[in-house]
Amino acid sequence: MLHQTDALDRVFHALADQSRRSMVERLSSGPASVSELAEPLDMSLAAVVQHVQVLEACGLVRSVKRGRIRTCRIDPSALQPAEHWISERQILRP
Amino acid sequence: MLHQTDALDRVFHALADQSRRSMVERLSSGPASVSELAEPLDMSLAAVVQHVQVLEACGLVRSVKRGRIRTCRIDPSALQPAEHWISERQILRP
Repeated sequence: MLHQTDALDRVFHALADQSRRSMVERLSSGPASVSELAEPLDMSLAAVVQHVQVLEACGLVRSVKRGRIRTCRIDPSALQPAEHWISERQILRP
Repeated sequence: MLHQTDALDRVFHALADQSRRSMVERLSSGPASVSELAEPLDMSLAAVVQHVQVLEACGLVRSVKRGRIRTCRIDPSALQPAEHWISERQILRP
């Protein structure tokens, strides 16, 4: 239960930022390197790496480093608890 | 577009806290006063009021004060943009 609570805190926090959501949107169409994720964003590579770390902490993104390239991919199953929580509230819409 | 972005930032931020989610869960079963929302939570009334303000800022809770009692009710339609954003990602699950 506590674990689930922490997971929801983390995933909702990760989604509460437009830059991180745009990274997730980009990864929805396929894996990308950190540099590719940074390309459309007006921020440093270091800032992008920090955002990726937040997305990794909630399990929404996984990354693998080969040589100098870190490739990120999405794991949409990490969204399930959040989707479930929201849909439970929606059932009760007046 | 920017408005939608801000709305998503606010609602996901509001949901990234277990206390606020528990208030929303409570309000799903009907309106409640701030004191009633505070009852099961281990925090001051002032802290509860601050959480209510975060929930009001994203439109998820509306409150009316009559005399000394502030009554809160949920507006689950404020969850729709968040639900929509998540479900768009889920479609793309591998």
